[in-house]
Amino acid sequence: MARWVHFSDRHGGTGIGTLEADSVRVHEGELFGASVAGQKTLPLAEIDLLAPCQPGKVVALWNNFHALGEKLGKAAPVHPLYLIKPGTSVIGPGAAIRRPPSYAGKIAFEGELAIVIGRTCSNVAVAEVDAYIFGYTCINDVTAAELVQADPNFPQWTRAKGFDTFSCLGPAICDDLDWKAARVVTMVDGAERQNYPISDMIFTPQAIVSGISQDMTLYPGDVIACGTSIGLGSMKDGATCEVTIEGIGTLSNQLAPGRG
Amino acid sequence: MARWVHFSDRHGGTGIGTLEADSVRVHEGELFGASVAGQKTLPLAEIDLLAPCQPGKVVALWNNFHALGEKLGKAAPVHPLYLIKPGTSVIGPGAAIRRPPSYAGKIAFEGELAIVIGRTCSNVAVAEVDAYIFGYTCINDVTAAELVQADPNFPQWTRAKGFDTFSCLGPAICDDLDWKAARVVTMVDGAERQNYPISDMIFTPQAIVSGISQDMTLYPGDVIACGTSIGLGSMKDGATCEVTIEGIGTLSNQLAPGRG
Repeated sequence: MARWVHFSDRHGGTGIGTLEADSVRVHEGELFGASVAGQKTLPLAEIDLLAPCQPGKVVALWNNFHALGEKLGKAAPVHPLYLIKPGTSVIGPGAAIRRPPSYAGKIAFEGELAIVIGRTCSNVAVAEVDAYIFGYTCINDVTAAELVQADPNFPQWTRAKGFDTFSCLGPAICDDLDWKAARVVTMVDGAERQNYPISDMIFTPQAIVSGISQDMTLYPGDVIACGTSIGLGSMKDGATCEVTIEGIGTLSNQLAPGRG
Repeated sequence: MARWVHFSDRHGGTGIGTLEADSVRVHEGELFGASVAGQKTLPLAEIDLLAPCQPGKVVALWNNFHALGEKLGKAAPVHPLYLIKPGTSVIGPGAAIRRPPSYAGKIAFEGELAIVIGRTCSNVAVAEVDAYIFGYTCINDVTAAELVQADPNFPQWTRAKGFDTFSCLGPAICDDLDWKAARVVTMVDGAERQNYPISDMIFTPQAIVSGISQDMTLYPGDVIACGTSIGLGSMKDGATCEVTIEGIGTLSNQLAPGRG
């Protein structure tokens, strides 16, 4: 089991590596191609972790947990329900979420498990799909909540969730996560707001990737956000949101205190 | 005024160029960077036109024409309403639209004007926006119409419009289109189905790009489909749909007669 990261060395260089106790083992090569572990390690204190991948698209699921669906009175879907967040919405650990200048309303956090695709993937059966999954990371699927229903005729899921900085990813991609035993824990300014078992999913990660691969080709580095469960809520400007999944780590991002 | 194309020479090579009467003037360089016209021309009969750009994202507008909004009884929106179609949905002129194996329902054509972004674009004012627009092309914004409302709780715009091959683009990007004077004409198997003035838009291309650039960063090659107007409808398997905008040309794509 390895936890893969993408980092900046603060001297203009970037690289990939695997997390060790207090350092990163630098690897040569490509995250989604061939790579080899080198001799060099860099102390975590001397680098900045970046988003662990740069997805071309983030496919974000809606209504994928039994507990939240029951609370909202929504029947379980028969195929994954989703929207696409653009790659431009992605930021890494520690980067600031920015309130859009045009929007003064509530901004919601949603702690979620995210799947990272490792190989080009089209029409893949559930039984075959693990070979196409590189691993798992945490996502905070940030939402400008009051935009969703602002137009009476068209729910603006894409706009509400697609702003720059609204997909926080990281800190690492775990390539062998036992997601059935894992929980998503979301804290806002130190107070626990979400703590739910990933096993409560309606569509498993394997069913999700297989199902979406019937609809569109997925590429290495593409991300699928598996949907959130109960406890999602709003965060004030200046608040820090932490999403933790054991085996992956803690993703921490502040909603910038000022506009823009 | 130039009409830019991306082509395959049928010997494994691809290139960019500008349309002349029966040929393409080959250019050296990058479509969204520096390029220079060469001496070489290739007869159109000896090349295949490809999608004129490879967008990272296709932002597709909904309810952007007065005539269609009035027909459907939908009030004009106050901000562009949109979803994102993945880049994987793009095909070029002459390529086949493929029915998803999972879907047996109606497949709709929507002839539209598409904006092609030329420069990285974030928070750009309407008055400044033309410097960020590379040009205009035609799009057939194909839709698996019966999926949109298949789930009672979540309109599946992204899925219905995001399948591979569901964004037909081309044949060329016109870098100086007088869109106010142009019409979108859509023919299915030779019968006219749409013929509407682009000037009936609710949000102009300049307002669209400015508005979306407030929400997300747009990159060179990104495409915005400006929405369709009256006459959209379904096409049978095996039908050929042609979208024509004077100044750009005719984009022709067949819905493949067989499944997959």
